[in-house]
Amino acid sequence: MAAEIVNQKDGLEPDVIDPAFALHRGGKMAVQATVPVRDADDLSLAYTPGVAKVCSAIAEQPELVDDYTWKSQVVAVVTDGSAVLGLGDIGPKASLPVMEGKAILFKQFGGVEAVPLALDTQDADEIVDTVVRLAPSFGGVNLEDIAAPRCFEIEARLKEKLDIPVFHDDQHGTAIVTLAALRNAAKLSGRALGQLRAVISGAGAAGVAIAKILIEAGIGDVAVCDRKGVVSGDREDLTEVKRELAGFTNKAGLTGSLENALAGADVFIGVSGGTVPEEAVAAMAEDAFVFAMANPNPEVHPDVARKYASVVATGRSDYPNQINNVLAFPGIFAGALQVRATDITEGMKLAAAEALAAVVADELSPERVIPSPFDERVAPAVTSAVAAAARAEGVARR
Amino acid sequence: MAAEIVNQKDGLEPDVIDPAFALHRGGKMAVQATVPVRDADDLSLAYTPGVAKVCSAIAEQPELVDDYTWKSQVVAVVTDGSAVLGLGDIGPKASLPVMEGKAILFKQFGGVEAVPLALDTQDADEIVDTVVRLAPSFGGVNLEDIAAPRCFEIEARLKEKLDIPVFHDDQHGTAIVTLAALRNAAKLSGRALGQLRAVISGAGAAGVAIAKILIEAGIGDVAVCDRKGVVSGDREDLTEVKRELAGFTNKAGLTGSLENALAGADVFIGVSGGTVPEEAVAAMAEDAFVFAMANPNPEVHPDVARKYASVVATGRSDYPNQINNVLAFPGIFAGALQVRATDITEGMKLAAAEALAAVVADELSPERVIPSPFDERVAPAVTSAVAAAARAEGVARR
Repeated sequence: MAAEIVNQKDGLEPDVIDPAFALHRGGKMAVQATVPVRDADDLSLAYTPGVAKVCSAIAEQPELVDDYTWKSQVVAVVTDGSAVLGLGDIGPKASLPVMEGKAILFKQFGGVEAVPLALDTQDADEIVDTVVRLAPSFGGVNLEDIAAPRCFEIEARLKEKLDIPVFHDDQHGTAIVTLAALRNAAKLSGRALGQLRAVISGAGAAGVAIAKILIEAGIGDVAVCDRKGVVSGDREDLTEVKRELAGFTNKAGLTGSLENALAGADVFIGVSGGTVPEEAVAAMAEDAFVFAMANPNPEVHPDVARKYASVVATGRSDYPNQINNVLAFPGIFAGALQVRATDITEGMKLAAAEALAAVVADELSPERVIPSPFDERVAPAVTSAVAAAARAEGVARR
Repeated sequence: MAAEIVNQKDGLEPDVIDPAFALHRGGKMAVQATVPVRDADDLSLAYTPGVAKVCSAIAEQPELVDDYTWKSQVVAVVTDGSAVLGLGDIGPKASLPVMEGKAILFKQFGGVEAVPLALDTQDADEIVDTVVRLAPSFGGVNLEDIAAPRCFEIEARLKEKLDIPVFHDDQHGTAIVTLAALRNAAKLSGRALGQLRAVISGAGAAGVAIAKILIEAGIGDVAVCDRKGVVSGDREDLTEVKRELAGFTNKAGLTGSLENALAGADVFIGVSGGTVPEEAVAAMAEDAFVFAMANPNPEVHPDVARKYASVVATGRSDYPNQINNVLAFPGIFAGALQVRATDITEGMKLAAAEALAAVVADELSPERVIPSPFDERVAPAVTSAVAAAARAEGVARR
């Protein structure tokens, strides 16, 4: 796409000459009426006096709100702007382009309505209170780009308080897509998940959630590393979340550096933004898998990783096997909303990963352990798997 | 429109068989992407990695959020569900059909994006805190169906705290349209506003705001009546808002009942839902104006009012001269957002009323003191008058 020159009259800096700016001018989304409002008859149904009957019916029977408003179809995309992409704590206004982008991806890929809400607070109590107060208007809450460790607390408290699905995409979206890719990589190499030992670099939102889902899915062992090395019970510098993590990961009792942990490991999963030296990748087990997902710079360059690993995935669209959350969140919310689920359970997440992996089917190869984000089979497959799992787990309301 | 039978499988009551329900099924609105997201190139501009440049630019220069997101085009339609239509305190969920309706009217009539937000709190502090936290995502706040007197406090505090327009439509929308109609009625009868004495029945959100704007516009005198009669300084049962009202209304020093006040009055404005006896209307001055705006039952039936008054208006679409807020709020926000106003000032409201009255022009007659809600000249006229007034009053940011 050719670069477009942004109107200088608006007082923009000269460096603001880029197709991304041209595309973003005026924002990326709009609302639309789905009923006619052309004449007095239309107005008397969609607004007063007709609307009063609908309001009264909901006042008497509150669950009718799901039938007669858009509530049960719309997700709040909520952030505090504290951990936006790789940019960090840039605040709510600067996070809005990402939240709007997320909202249109919800719509385009999952048919889910979504509204970007970037909050002017980074206090966990205030975020929880605010989202609870907003809940009557929404069918679900997608938390986004909220820094660890408060993202864990906020999600847990909201799940507890609300009867609509709450999902922190940076955690679970990434975890689900990673698990799907790993399932297919394992299948390719003829091994069960239980035979694999994984090392995760990064103990933030994504790292913690990936560790949890891999264990739920039955991985042999997983060790999580932060900047100081393996998160293990003997360390005295651990936050509460990492202490908990040490309790259910690292059966092997590894200690020391990421490089130590990688020696002989079957799987590397990078969600850290750090770098891993080539020697450490070379020291992994035969037939290793390297998922170097940091963006835009993978922890190991995919060309280097390919020298040692049988399957390589990244977060980038210009290499094979892109671990992209858009493969998961639209279908997950579409499925949850379809059955008016009160929660997104672990079972629903595992079902999403399985369905996502299954889409690849007989196209499975080292260059295709995960479908393309534009594979139109993905969202329907995830949607129906999540809806079915919600029913099976007893959280579906219809 | 023929009644449509709603699917009984959904467990709905049999009485839910009404075209309004059929129309409301699934809600009345949706979001849409305004940029393409069809392939990897699109995604790399609208989402990562392209979006990161836009985020970084906003982080450095926060006002760019208005250029590169939908913020400056979208209004939050906020309620606590405490005073919904004539239904009263039906709560946030039951209020949602009205808020959605409002959102689509914003879009259809003013080209303004709007998002319904019905809050699960009726505490003024909590409502203020919540809206302040939401403000980074919105270009304006339309408060809706919040009970008096807390609506006054909430609006005042939000106007103080926020640098985006805050507007309580039940107050100011009604007041602006009423003033516009009164201007034209006065013009028809060859009198100046200063020659008129008005009586308002109802000292809630609408009554207080109408009293204020009529005084700002230069009306001769206005007395406001609540259920106990004229709000006057000698009463000891007045709330703070009504005490204040007594201070700047009722120059004539009237006391006693609404009927007393109406004797010899030029204008009756009903926003109470009560009824006014025919004798009281008969006792008004020659060439009187009766604006009986209670819905669905006007304080005085228009056929009765017409026997004594030269101009009659109601809130109903099936009689001439419908005082309908949709004549004001879409253009008011469209104008305020167009110039990125930091506030909606009294001058902007007066300008809106003047522009609205002027649309009628040479079609002016006792049956047309206010344009039809479907008159396509209305929103553009109000929009440009409000934008110009914002510039004149120094609250425009561009």
